[in-house]
Amino acid sequence: MSVSVSAGAEVVVMGETMALFSSRSAGVLRSGAKADFSVGGAESNVAIGLARLGVPVAWIGRVGVDPFGDEIVRVLRGEGVEVLARRDGSRRTGLMVKERRTALHQRVVYYRSDSAGSALSPDDVDDRIVGGARVLHVTGITPALSESATAAVDHAIDAARAAGTTVSLDVNYRSALWSRDAATAALTRLLPSVDILFAGLEEAELLTGRASGPEQAAADLARLGPSQVVVKHGATGATAAVDGEPAVTASPPAVPVVDTVGAGDAFVAGYLAAYLAGDSVPSRLELGCATGAFACMAAGDWEGAPTRDELALLRSSEPVLR
Amino acid sequence: MSVSVSAGAEVVVMGETMALFSSRSAGVLRSGAKADFSVGGAESNVAIGLARLGVPVAWIGRVGVDPFGDEIVRVLRGEGVEVLARRDGSRRTGLMVKERRTALHQRVVYYRSDSAGSALSPDDVDDRIVGGARVLHVTGITPALSESATAAVDHAIDAARAAGTTVSLDVNYRSALWSRDAATAALTRLLPSVDILFAGLEEAELLTGRASGPEQAAADLARLGPSQVVVKHGATGATAAVDGEPAVTASPPAVPVVDTVGAGDAFVAGYLAAYLAGDSVPSRLELGCATGAFACMAAGDWEGAPTRDELALLRSSEPVLR
Amino acid sequence: MSVSVSAGAEVVVMGETMALFSSRSAGVLRSGAKADFSVGGAESNVAIGLARLGVPVAWIGRVGVDPFGDEIVRVLRGEGVEVLARRDGSRRTGLMVKERRTALHQRVVYYRSDSAGSALSPDDVDDRIVGGARVLHVTGITPALSESATAAVDHAIDAARAAGTTVSLDVNYRSALWSRDAATAALTRLLPSVDILFAGLEEAELLTGRASGPEQAAADLARLGPSQVVVKHGATGATAAVDGEPAVTASPPAVPVVDTVGAGDAFVAGYLAAYLAGDSVPSRLELGCATGAFACMAAGDWEGAPTRDELALLRSSEPVLR
Amino acid sequence: MSVSVSAGAEVVVMGETMALFSSRSAGVLRSGAKADFSVGGAESNVAIGLARLGVPVAWIGRVGVDPFGDEIVRVLRGEGVEVLARRDGSRRTGLMVKERRTALHQRVVYYRSDSAGSALSPDDVDDRIVGGARVLHVTGITPALSESATAAVDHAIDAARAAGTTVSLDVNYRSALWSRDAATAALTRLLPSVDILFAGLEEAELLTGRASGPEQAAADLARLGPSQVVVKHGATGATAAVDGEPAVTASPPAVPVVDTVGAGDAFVAGYLAAYLAGDSVPSRLELGCATGAFACMAAGDWEGAPTRDELALLRSSEPVLR
Amino acid sequence: MSVSVSAGAEVVVMGETMALFSSRSAGVLRSGAKADFSVGGAESNVAIGLARLGVPVAWIGRVGVDPFGDEIVRVLRGEGVEVLARRDGSRRTGLMVKERRTALHQRVVYYRSDSAGSALSPDDVDDRIVGGARVLHVTGITPALSESATAAVDHAIDAARAAGTTVSLDVNYRSALWSRDAATAALTRLLPSVDILFAGLEEAELLTGRASGPEQAAADLARLGPSQVVVKHGATGATAAVDGEPAVTASPPAVPVVDTVGAGDAFVAGYLAAYLAGDSVPSRLELGCATGAFACMAAGDWEGAPTRDELALLRSSEPVLR
Amino acid sequence: MSVSVSAGAEVVVMGETMALFSSRSAGVLRSGAKADFSVGGAESNVAIGLARLGVPVAWIGRVGVDPFGDEIVRVLRGEGVEVLARRDGSRRTGLMVKERRTALHQRVVYYRSDSAGSALSPDDVDDRIVGGARVLHVTGITPALSESATAAVDHAIDAARAAGTTVSLDVNYRSALWSRDAATAALTRLLPSVDILFAGLEEAELLTGRASGPEQAAADLARLGPSQVVVKHGATGATAAVDGEPAVTASPPAVPVVDTVGAGDAFVAGYLAAYLAGDSVPSRLELGCATGAFACMAAGDWEGAPTRDELALLRSSEPVLR
Repeated sequence: MSVSVSAGAEVVVMGETMALFSSRSAGVLRSGAKADFSVGGAESNVAIGLARLGVPVAWIGRVGVDPFGDEIVRVLRGEGVEVLARRDGSRRTGLMVKERRTALHQRVVYYRSDSAGSALSPDDVDDRIVGGARVLHVTGITPALSESATAAVDHAIDAARAAGTTVSLDVNYRSALWSRDAATAALTRLLPSVDILFAGLEEAELLTGRASGPEQAAADLARLGPSQVVVKHGATGATAAVDGEPAVTASPPAVPVVDTVGAGDAFVAGYLAAYLAGDSVPSRLELGCATGAFACMAAGDWEGAPTRDELALLRSSEPVLR
Repeated sequence: MSVSVSAGAEVVVMGETMALFSSRSAGVLRSGAKADFSVGGAESNVAIGLARLGVPVAWIGRVGVDPFGDEIVRVLRGEGVEVLARRDGSRRTGLMVKERRTALHQRVVYYRSDSAGSALSPDDVDDRIVGGARVLHVTGITPALSESATAAVDHAIDAARAAGTTVSLDVNYRSALWSRDAATAALTRLLPSVDILFAGLEEAELLTGRASGPEQAAADLARLGPSQVVVKHGATGATAAVDGEPAVTASPPAVPVVDTVGAGDAFVAGYLAAYLAGDSVPSRLELGCATGAFACMAAGDWEGAPTRDELALLRSSEPVLR
Repeated sequence: MSVSVSAGAEVVVMGETMALFSSRSAGVLRSGAKADFSVGGAESNVAIGLARLGVPVAWIGRVGVDPFGDEIVRVLRGEGVEVLARRDGSRRTGLMVKERRTALHQRVVYYRSDSAGSALSPDDVDDRIVGGARVLHVTGITPALSESATAAVDHAIDAARAAGTTVSLDVNYRSALWSRDAATAALTRLLPSVDILFAGLEEAELLTGRASGPEQAAADLARLGPSQVVVKHGATGATAAVDGEPAVTASPPAVPVVDTVGAGDAFVAGYLAAYLAGDSVPSRLELGCATGAFACMAAGDWEGAPTRDELALLRSSEPVLR
Repeated sequence: MSVSVSAGAEVVVMGETMALFSSRSAGVLRSGAKADFSVGGAESNVAIGLARLGVPVAWIGRVGVDPFGDEIVRVLRGEGVEVLARRDGSRRTGLMVKERRTALHQRVVYYRSDSAGSALSPDDVDDRIVGGARVLHVTGITPALSESATAAVDHAIDAARAAGTTVSLDVNYRSALWSRDAATAALTRLLPSVDILFAGLEEAELLTGRASGPEQAAADLARLGPSQVVVKHGATGATAAVDGEPAVTASPPAVPVVDTVGAGDAFVAGYLAAYLAGDSVPSRLELGCATGAFACMAAGDWEGAPTRDELALLRSSEPVLR
Repeated sequence: MSVSVSAGAEVVVMGETMALFSSRSAGVLRSGAKADFSVGGAESNVAIGLARLGVPVAWIGRVGVDPFGDEIVRVLRGEGVEVLARRDGSRRTGLMVKERRTALHQRVVYYRSDSAGSALSPDDVDDRIVGGARVLHVTGITPALSESATAAVDHAIDAARAAGTTVSLDVNYRSALWSRDAATAALTRLLPSVDILFAGLEEAELLTGRASGPEQAAADLARLGPSQVVVKHGATGATAAVDGEPAVTASPPAVPVVDTVGAGDAFVAGYLAAYLAGDSVPSRLELGCATGAFACMAAGDWEGAPTRDELALLRSSEPVLR
Repeated sequence: MSVSVSAGAEVVVMGETMALFSSRSAGVLRSGAKADFSVGGAESNVAIGLARLGVPVAWIGRVGVDPFGDEIVRVLRGEGVEVLARRDGSRRTGLMVKERRTALHQRVVYYRSDSAGSALSPDDVDDRIVGGARVLHVTGITPALSESATAAVDHAIDAARAAGTTVSLDVNYRSALWSRDAATAALTRLLPSVDILFAGLEEAELLTGRASGPEQAAADLARLGPSQVVVKHGATGATAAVDGEPAVTASPPAVPVVDTVGAGDAFVAGYLAAYLAGDSVPSRLELGCATGAFACMAAGDWEGAPTRDELALLRSSEPVLR
């Protein structure tokens, strides 16, 4: 068996990936302390999750000509993601810092305004790549970044629809980037073009205008356009309303939680991988819940995402591989 | 808004602050391992807690002319505490080492005999500073250190009473420093001059001579003189008997506990801050419980103490600031 | 009181000790990361456990002429274990790597084929040392390593029986080293010569051919020869069937678990120490459960094993030593 | 001797201080690596250098309401610098990242555009504080940050001149912030108002328009206005042309160099401290060279700056203090 | 500019890449210490060096189905090397441990006997990939690993020669793997098929049978077959004898040396990159010396290798990029 | 070859061994930083040095019943030193902290007054052990610790002389412990009983009353009693005057210096090992210089001391072992 890069991506994701410094120990970040360096972005987290599950995937984005851009390319390539990234010599790669203020609370500082990633534009989108894929996955973060980034999302969705590529969107509302009203308006505009919609309960409320439980939220969202709606509700699992069928809910396995960041992205990767494999809706939710839970057992935004082989550990009575 | 050092401290604390080496990982401390360096002392922990809550506060103490004395001054000043410290060129700054023998148990070795801090004397007390403050806070540790330290406590309390400054005392019984009998005798002598008394349940037994529950302990202690008695009973909260009114109890919020050291000092800071703000007894207990609980969510004797803004996190459904 | 090396070992253990690299943080082991270096082996873990409990103990093994052999000698000597080890200049010391893939799961890679430790042979066994001891302790790992290692175990058991030394065996089945059938055959052959047998529930099934609860398993194993059978069943404790008496069960104290690796070895050390002290069967189990539980409160294969003094902490209401 | 905060600063510095992440080991910064966190800024480095030498000093600047702003205040206060800083809730504290690409070369990424510090404005300048000091120290960085920051520098210089406060300027040309032409124009405008000018050889060329040696450069710069010109030429020392007297040169002591960053700022602190003490020009240069050399013997932008006591080490034959 | 994986490799390298644990601080490796984890191999180091210089390159090798095999694939892909690797489920990835015994000396322990990498066989070689490349690069390590690995080298060289692909060989004599006689015999057999030969001075002596200086060694080696002979002589540079022309020597730039491991591989990458670009012999040596020197300025076997852009730093008077 | 503990020590050393925390990075020790933990003492450093060279050696000392006493016993035993130590339950093990203030300078804080080690007394000396050894080695530190420690030294020297055991003394003047006058008086009293005297140049001046070069110093010291005088003069080597013969000087090999602490102790170990082996005076100096130089190539007080095998590295052209 020879390992080589896939000829064609089945999934294309698009979005901003940033550099990330985070403090490890709970407490105020003080000079003299150490911070962990990594990179991350909701969409590329999904891409890594898919690649680990064996799905050929490509990432469209923009990074600076700086050490962070270098590392983003290196990490994604290393994980087997095809990198379709412009190196933007006139802008810095975006950066975020997370201070673990307590065992429970983080303080996050963003340096992404005017970043290379936020300057994503329709020019960065290769229609043939999008059209040749089976799924295009985007998030509600990108339209919040800039006008050109919004245009890039629109362009990619158009290219996908023209080619019959399934359009997947994760709401991923970021209050630091835009207001609830602006987000609601922008995302509502996109929903009719979306085939698979992922949302949390609060995000569902943002789009539907009312708070409700998972099943109701899924049904309400389905009325806005998407044929597949998946409501992620954390430790209690996820609920899907697909093709007008009654909503289906799955629960994740119980695991010791190290870090919940990135669990939602790992869930999306699992769901999409099962969707691409032709699995049933309950099977899609089950795989999503398993990958999401698995990712919680290690620190990092994407570092904990499992391979197919590793998922077997969740069903094993013997906790040691090999 | 311009940040500058307070013209006058509302609270003055007095006591010994030491250097501190502690092992991070559970297990026997072995050569080749790393230890975390910090500084700490019950009274200066309270001072930092008050400063973070916005209360102007000064610390009276003595440190050596050595790297530890330098750092103690640096840390307290950095936190906004006014430092009224003599540098004692003939004595070392005290030091303690904590070996985290297991996840539950510490072995502590003290090097504080004949330290600069234990040589605190009445000369170190500026009567005008004490008299100009609204609260003087001392602990039962200082009288255990030396005769001159005992005299310093007596002198400070006299200065406070002469000026109408409220006298606050936290029992803080340390079995490594003196016997139960010696402690009981020394502290009983002080109680008639104390306005606010903080004690744990075992400390209450030490002073009252009988084991009892929080309410009874508070009532018994109140009979020994202090108009405000606050019994701290850890995870179950704190109980106050004030001005002959029926005892009041408050419970802390549930939090993931990283390190309970310093929680009692953070509680005292919260209680005193609320007292100074003119809050009711239940509100004082509530703030004390909140600051104490918050401090448990990070490692260190004082590092986890919250600011007013940060306390809001405890009431937030959203665990991420900003 | 003068500390010096024991003139004669009461217990002799024999087996392979290896170098060990393990990743600390949960997640995939990536280049640029750090790994913790240590050494370990089931039999030498028991030896360290016994030495910490004050029992004179010697270790028979073989290590390479390399930094790992040096460190194994250093660690065991440092813990007060008498080291009877051949330095084998023609073979490397064995090595294992543990990747903490998640908070729950490890991936282990062994490099022990053709190691110095696996080349243990009858020549390495000094009959007088074995005969002069009160207990010889071996495990089911050694017969899985090589023919010469099997011969060394046979030789040591023969020497022990000839001298009236009690023979103790811990099954310690390792699926990476041999098949269930091979292990069953080899260990069944040894059982008639074993006085004290330690086994887990799955290991009992391996030897008896049927799954059952602790009491049944102990009774079944006793029928295969050993006069003392101890079934270790983890967090629920251990059950002993001794000299045809009804089975007795003890439960460990509840402790916060940091690392369960090495808990079984610490249990064996506790049981044997109590046996050598002439304690009753319930007391042996109790000490074994206490040492096993204690060892779980720190990371490492043997680092957490307690001394007699430290065990007092488990019964203390005050979690801080001194 | 009682330690307290100085009533009035003898030196006021003004400028931007930023958060700083830097990699420790030479090589490409890779995810999974650690970075050291600290804070720094040319002007506050000078302030810390002065405070360590015992000179009362205040810092005027602006920081965000974020963990970095908190730490900047904490560090400067801790070092005994009076902090006159506006907390700007609408802007982030600036940040820079240094990748130690090789043992010799760094790659630096700035995130300071639109930072709180770059929004410094005349409103932040308290004329009485500036007027009450003996020296105002600014750098050529601040006019490169924004129009309002330029106005703040102008305002502070005007206030200083009006009150007879000596104006000190370090050129500190930063090619990442502006072009050579823009810098030359802006700084040339300021020179007539400057009393003490610090410049490197390349910076002298920028201002005078021609490359030359230290003595010539100092003479040329003196013709542009400043009565004291100090040309810093690194390992070979510094040359001063003061009040039309012949240029004087001093050389630094030979020391093992750990990190040259911040050496120039430490030099300025030493020169100004000696100037304030009324020392001769050669003595000013000598103290500057000593503090600059000392600062090179530890990592960090300001961490290595010496106290008066520590400087004695440079003249000691015995390298160990105490 | 869109980044994507090269359609066809210009260089193909083949060999074993191993996991690597190394201690960082000088001194005996003791339990409780940390070791740095990485991966490395002479041939893949060259591949990374070429990829960083912009040359499309592929690596042929074999790794185990274990965390080390995963990481080797991840690192090489991340660096942009095309990975043509068999995952061998029946063998472990090879491993080596380096103890930095002193600032000057290492003790190395290998665990590569019977490794996946040493089981490389002709089946692993894709003739079309080798034939489609411009250069095949192998080393004298691979024939020392096993018979099948020797056959793989023979097969690859045959495929290269059949297609007109230039054959490059670095002697890389490893005394731990085979005797001088065995190495001499095996490599002498290969020399007539080699176009570019890299050797150190001691390696030249091994092949020619006599000690001599660089120019003589190059001339002597050229008589054994290769049309290009490059003798690497460390800090003093490298000497090439090409196509019967007089020998040419180049010297490396002076740099602060952090770690010389991997410098030879970086040199080879530089030489080959220049050769592929059609550069003159002096230019090839110059690029090789520059990349080799650059690689010494950071720790690690390949981590320090430069990109084209970074090489500019060696000629810069300004040590900071950007 | 079987490794076991030596039946009888050829060398007995006596003195205080302490716990040691030291900061690793140059700069002020700040809270939040890490310190390295180890143990050390001049005499036990010599013991470890001897043990590594294969000389059977015992250490007489006193340690507390605390984690530091435990570790001192563990380290010395681990290195193969026979430990003859009283555990003193009423005193703490001594402790010292080293702040690496700059790359060149340390600040040291001692906590050894009233330590267990300083309470060493004649009771701790076993006359038979001392009498059974060939060399007793003590230092000028012990008489500075306490009256009982002085008496212990006297007692041990008397026991040695009575039994014909050679008495070795290293001056090791510590200015923090006593005045020059007190040291001169106390050591001068001992010199007539000393056979082998080690001193630095400044220590020679202390004892002889005049500054001079190595040869003169050795001759002057010889007149005070010792038949063997060895003057250590650091990087330039050592000079011995033995039995009235002309002084002989040896120079150490050039090595990269990581840490000179402990080099003098390693020198003493080398000299004594050669003396015990019956080597000539030049050979004793040569071995001392080699071990001293070797020890400088790693950090730590004793960690860098070499074994016989490792010394071969100094003469090797190949810097890598194996």
